[in-house]
Amino acid sequence: MKYAPPVHVTGLKCEICGTTYKHGNIFTCPSCGDEGILDVQYDYESISAALAKDPLKNRAQNIWRYSELLPVSADIARPHLFVGWTPVYDIPRLAEAFGIRQFFLKDEGRNPTNSFKDRASSVGVLKGIEFGFNQIACASTGNAASSLAGLSAATGLKSYIFVPERAPEPKVTQLLIFGATVLRVLGTYEQAFDLCKAACEKYGWYNRNSGSNPFLVEGKKTAGLEIAEQLSGNMPDWVVVSVGDGCTIGGIGKGLQEMYELGIIDRVPRLLGVQAEGARPMVDAFISGKDLIPSDTNTLADSIAVGTPRNWRRALRQIKLSGGEMIAVSDEEILDAMRTTARLGAVFGEPAGVTGTAGLKKAVEKGIIKKNESALCIITGNGLKDIQSAKQAVGKALDVKPTLEGLVDVMSKT
Amino acid sequence: MKYAPPVHVTGLKCEICGTTYKHGNIFTCPSCGDEGILDVQYDYESISAALAKDPLKNRAQNIWRYSELLPVSADIARPHLFVGWTPVYDIPRLAEAFGIRQFFLKDEGRNPTNSFKDRASSVGVLKGIEFGFNQIACASTGNAASSLAGLSAATGLKSYIFVPERAPEPKVTQLLIFGATVLRVLGTYEQAFDLCKAACEKYGWYNRNSGSNPFLVEGKKTAGLEIAEQLSGNMPDWVVVSVGDGCTIGGIGKGLQEMYELGIIDRVPRLLGVQAEGARPMVDAFISGKDLIPSDTNTLADSIAVGTPRNWRRALRQIKLSGGEMIAVSDEEILDAMRTTARLGAVFGEPAGVTGTAGLKKAVEKGIIKKNESALCIITGNGLKDIQSAKQAVGKALDVKPTLEGLVDVMSKT
Repeated sequence: MKYAPPVHVTGLKCEICGTTYKHGNIFTCPSCGDEGILDVQYDYESISAALAKDPLKNRAQNIWRYSELLPVSADIARPHLFVGWTPVYDIPRLAEAFGIRQFFLKDEGRNPTNSFKDRASSVGVLKGIEFGFNQIACASTGNAASSLAGLSAATGLKSYIFVPERAPEPKVTQLLIFGATVLRVLGTYEQAFDLCKAACEKYGWYNRNSGSNPFLVEGKKTAGLEIAEQLSGNMPDWVVVSVGDGCTIGGIGKGLQEMYELGIIDRVPRLLGVQAEGARPMVDAFISGKDLIPSDTNTLADSIAVGTPRNWRRALRQIKLSGGEMIAVSDEEILDAMRTTARLGAVFGEPAGVTGTAGLKKAVEKGIIKKNESALCIITGNGLKDIQSAKQAVGKALDVKPTLEGLVDVMSKT
Repeated sequence: MKYAPPVHVTGLKCEICGTTYKHGNIFTCPSCGDEGILDVQYDYESISAALAKDPLKNRAQNIWRYSELLPVSADIARPHLFVGWTPVYDIPRLAEAFGIRQFFLKDEGRNPTNSFKDRASSVGVLKGIEFGFNQIACASTGNAASSLAGLSAATGLKSYIFVPERAPEPKVTQLLIFGATVLRVLGTYEQAFDLCKAACEKYGWYNRNSGSNPFLVEGKKTAGLEIAEQLSGNMPDWVVVSVGDGCTIGGIGKGLQEMYELGIIDRVPRLLGVQAEGARPMVDAFISGKDLIPSDTNTLADSIAVGTPRNWRRALRQIKLSGGEMIAVSDEEILDAMRTTARLGAVFGEPAGVTGTAGLKKAVEKGIIKKNESALCIITGNGLKDIQSAKQAVGKALDVKPTLEGLVDVMSKT
């Protein structure tokens, strides 16, 4: 395929050794190995000139409005699915409940496959096409998998998804409906992950692995770019999001920094990264200031149950750069946030989706976030994806005999 | 509550006898009884003047951009949830698959609680508030219930939802998470429906029953208004949607007619209403030209499994006014449409959500829709709402031993 590479990308820089490589189909740094995640570098002066000529406000409301800030060649056709530009709500009742000045919520469950991951998969499938692949693969049971299956369907790529043996059937159904070939690996998630990598090498499939693919996090960045644009006149003091492998918060931080760099916002909000108590290696590394130590995981927030986060360096760098903080919350606090977010904010998030909100509440209680401050929480995924967990957050229906007397009897006891 | 009633509403007109009543908290026509559904009447001249002063294109992208065309007082605060302005996709691969000139898809699963019903519930909760109610109720297990629970949470109304004994637990969970009181009536859906009506009278709750409440269908109308605006330069020949109680297609038809009336489109597309073979009383009434005869229901498309459609008169009137048609499809055809829509269109719809697409395919085969015509299908709800049905549409994951040899073995057989 003959094409012009993304014009504003200047290279790919290793997070560890700082070496910069030319744009191309590479994953991690050849010198630093698997941990040498590469960060896409841009020429912000030329981007600034391009945006001055064709202002953002005139553009379509999806992630491709940020084409100059994305590492995808202009020659590659964009998928028809509208990803991004998810709503930001100002919700006074939640500000009051949490005891802060102003509360914003950004609902990422409104993306095409109902999670934040559509941002990353959009870039992933286009990079696959740009590099000449017809097939793409990943190992996941969750939002990465369903978004890859959906975006592959949108672009005509064939997708192969490796899932561990214990993958719940509803999640597998979502993949199959989009036409993905689902390979159920009779073993653990780690075995599925390794087999996916080996299969990509053997069969020549493109690997959508957001922990090592340098381009996917650029898709995630668009949430930060959007927040800057959607709230440019009223930047919140804090942006709060759940943390698993670190790509999401790292990407959002990068997006906010870029909008500051481009003069679209005049200050960068502080990032609050929230992990579950049962999977908090990044919180511990943040506190200790030392290298991350992998941990076991035990939390119902499966989308952030990551014991060995691949992108911890970038995440911690962005959090520190913003003057941010990290905090961990219990599963009970997550279930409580699920109820509060749905009942006062009218948004039903999955457990990892509302973990940020749980962290916000705790951060206010601990005095990290002050009463006169404002915050935006990102709800990363729709609660319909994990009804089983939601069940733990709620009571039961009331059984009523089919007569008015029966109803009066039940109502008198509520 | 002191307020100014909706200024452009001139009255409520009975679908049967044509009598027009003053705007107010009434349901069906006092003379014609339960079947005398009322249709909201507007002063289109004054609306036209208002739109000339403040053009639609400058307004927020949600249903409240159409405030003058909605029967809600301007004094009632709009909920923070963004409902409507769902994406319309132009999908050449589906046009080719169905053998028509151009295929558009409007994805209603992108609404806040993931279905078309959010449009109706938005208007329902505000009318409840406008009429001074603090509580609102409905009988449903499906999208009407979850959207009422979500919109009630957004506006601070207390919601009571009556569900039949057999209501599946995942659907009940969605209601509980939004803080609804769920009353599980130990009996059939009809008993739940009747008890809800009696309870509204006894306890003074507002009744969100789209079959008799005259205002809810006005919310549904916004999908027609949007299609007109989103495709004004390229109106499709057909608009295709699934049909249950008739409110949805009746509302969409009204919205399209209004945009024609206001000069925003120069012709009204023909409506194709699609029912499941197992619940086709409206198709039969359309063919016979006689009054509707209630039927039993037997289809997996539960959202349109309606044996006694309440709004059949309005639906048939709008379909005929547009020069439209009706058609019925089998459950097998619905499952096939679910696969096709997801694999070529990258949109995962629930069974009733893709019933329109199944009908489009059949209508082309039967020569009702011609090869040189264009069509827009409305996907009314997200497939995540009914994973059990989706399972019937797909095959299985492939079991693989966690070794490359194991994978090569499986791949050689695919």
